Amino acid sequence: MATSHHDLEEGTRLAPRFDAAGLVTCIAQDAQTGEILMLAHMNADALALTMATGEAHYFSRSRKALWKKGETSGQTQKVSEIRIDCDQDAVLLKVEMGGTGAACHTGRRSCFYRTIPLGAAPSDATALAFTGDEPRFDPKAVYGGSHEH
Amino acid sequence: MATSHHDLEEGTRLAPRFDAAGLVTCIAQDAQTGEILMLAHMNADALALTMATGEAHYFSRSRKALWKKGETSGQTQKVSEIRIDCDQDAVLLKVEMGGTGAACHTGRRSCFYRTIPLGAAPSDATALAFTGDEPRFDPKAVYGGSHEH
Repeated sequence: MATSHHDLEEGTRLAPRFDAAGLVTCIAQDAQTGEILMLAHMNADALALTMATGEAHYFSRSRKALWKKGETSGQTQKVSEIRIDCDQDAVLLKVEMGGTGAACHTGRRSCFYRTIPLGAAPSDATALAFTGDEPRFDPKAVYGGSHEH
Repeated sequence: MATSHHDLEEGTRLAPRFDAAGLVTCIAQDAQTGEILMLAHMNADALALTMATGEAHYFSRSRKALWKKGETSGQTQKVSEIRIDCDQDAVLLKVEMGGTGAACHTGRRSCFYRTIPLGAAPSDATALAFTGDEPRFDPKAVYGGSHEH
């Protein structure tokens, strides 16, 4: 069933616009604090499983595989709300972290643990600053040579 | 200069990993409330201009053009902080909205103005629910037949 531009943006029917690789982009946000935890991707199966189970599932572009968040690391994400954006090619999950609360494969709470200096040119930006989000687990001990991303 | 996997994730050098189309994904988040406003893309020029000016610039995939947020609508975004993620292919902007505070081209505060019901199968999801984020401007009056995305 085709969806008109108006229905896509103003309607109540879920009609995700998966890209050529079959994916939509997904933001995971801490439901309590509002902190952005990570950016990932979902194929149709990952979205369906997330909706059905209330546990975040993604699709790994590097491993080309469906992935339940935390299946290796124990850092699960319990989903309290799912949103979709205006043109239905991006999804937002509001989640409660399980495990030690580390969404990032580096062991940190959030993948966004460095700031880019404002006012600098990119070529001058040799000083990314760490936010103080320290690792909560040892990635080598958890993943060995591979990781979930 | 090549960047090792370790330096990419644990270093202080900005080395954005633009995709085949020359883009990174960018989340815009309200700096005060933590609300996710929109998801967009940046090419190298958009990132450089955002860093240099402190005003959000993006790259429109549909119009294939660099775009200063608010150049048509007046809904500008003043950037208070820029972050980059672990593998440097996603950027987070913390912003203060100008204009009437409507980041979305539909006139709403956020592009994520509909929720997907939890517990439903995608084929049953005929009931996206609106969050109550009402339009703050009339898109037709602002954009005519086109819009910024």
